[in-house]
Amino acid sequence: MQRATSFNEALLKKYPEQVVIVLAKEESGRVNPVTIGWTMFTSHVPPMMAFSLGKQRYSIGVIRKAGEFVIAFPSEAQEKETLLFGTKSGRNTDKLAESGIATCPATVVDCLLLTDAVANFECRLAGEFKTGDHVIFAGEVVAAHVNPDSPGRLYTVGKGYIMSGISIKKA
Amino acid sequence: MQRATSFNEALLKKYPEQVVIVLAKEESGRVNPVTIGWTMFTSHVPPMMAFSLGKQRYSIGVIRKAGEFVIAFPSEAQEKETLLFGTKSGRNTDKLAESGIATCPATVVDCLLLTDAVANFECRLAGEFKTGDHVIFAGEVVAAHVNPDSPGRLYTVGKGYIMSGISIKKA
Repeated sequence: MQRATSFNEALLKKYPEQVVIVLAKEESGRVNPVTIGWTMFTSHVPPMMAFSLGKQRYSIGVIRKAGEFVIAFPSEAQEKETLLFGTKSGRNTDKLAESGIATCPATVVDCLLLTDAVANFECRLAGEFKTGDHVIFAGEVVAAHVNPDSPGRLYTVGKGYIMSGISIKKA
Repeated sequence: MQRATSFNEALLKKYPEQVVIVLAKEESGRVNPVTIGWTMFTSHVPPMMAFSLGKQRYSIGVIRKAGEFVIAFPSEAQEKETLLFGTKSGRNTDKLAESGIATCPATVVDCLLLTDAVANFECRLAGEFKTGDHVIFAGEVVAAHVNPDSPGRLYTVGKGYIMSGISIKKA
């Protein structure tokens, strides 16, 4: 059965929700990471991915100016860094430096990969689309990388940025 | 460490990926359900959700004509119906009738809710955005419903439409 409720209460049914980290290079040369839960793939040919970023976020301007970015899937061992990238702002923090997270150069776009992430997708900005208080950015994937150690993905599992790895119930 | 690979291999790192069922009413009065994995929330104020649908899919025309739809989160008990709605086409199948799934009327838009789903979001089409071989549809949520029994969400957990419920690793 269904019970009518507020959007905010129904929104809590979204968990577990995957998270990604979007990295883009600033004009200063510093790379800014931001954690995002509202993301999806959006094309096979050409390969494309999309994410929604709040209109007031510092990262919006960085991504627009750079015109390219990396989408990393953090591993379940990267909870602390993922939380930091989602709760601090690049306006007043060098988030990559503060986290000490391992990075390595991207191969096609001018940016960094997260060395210990599950996967990294190098993207060129393909377009944007305003949706309420967010903007959807779509990027074409121009290079992809995976972690051969195959760690599990990190998910937000409850309100207040509670994060965890998850297990599949079916054998 | 990271190893360069194809997009299609890196894409396999997306699992588990949540699935939703989008329902829209055809001019004939029949309601057509389609299962979609590429979906995200995209605004708090106003509340909005988005999903990506392949350009060739029958449901594209149905959603555009209806101008409104319901996004349901199937429960882990609805695997069989979710698979049917994602692999058969409304062009030649009355998918709701074939599945026998329980439905009840939506309250604001002219459509149906899935009675035993985790949650249902009634949406008005707010815009669309072409991305490669898919189209992103964005909808404004005008009513929301949850299942008081709180079943778990259903996820795709591997290639070939393997679906399962999931568990949180952290206590």
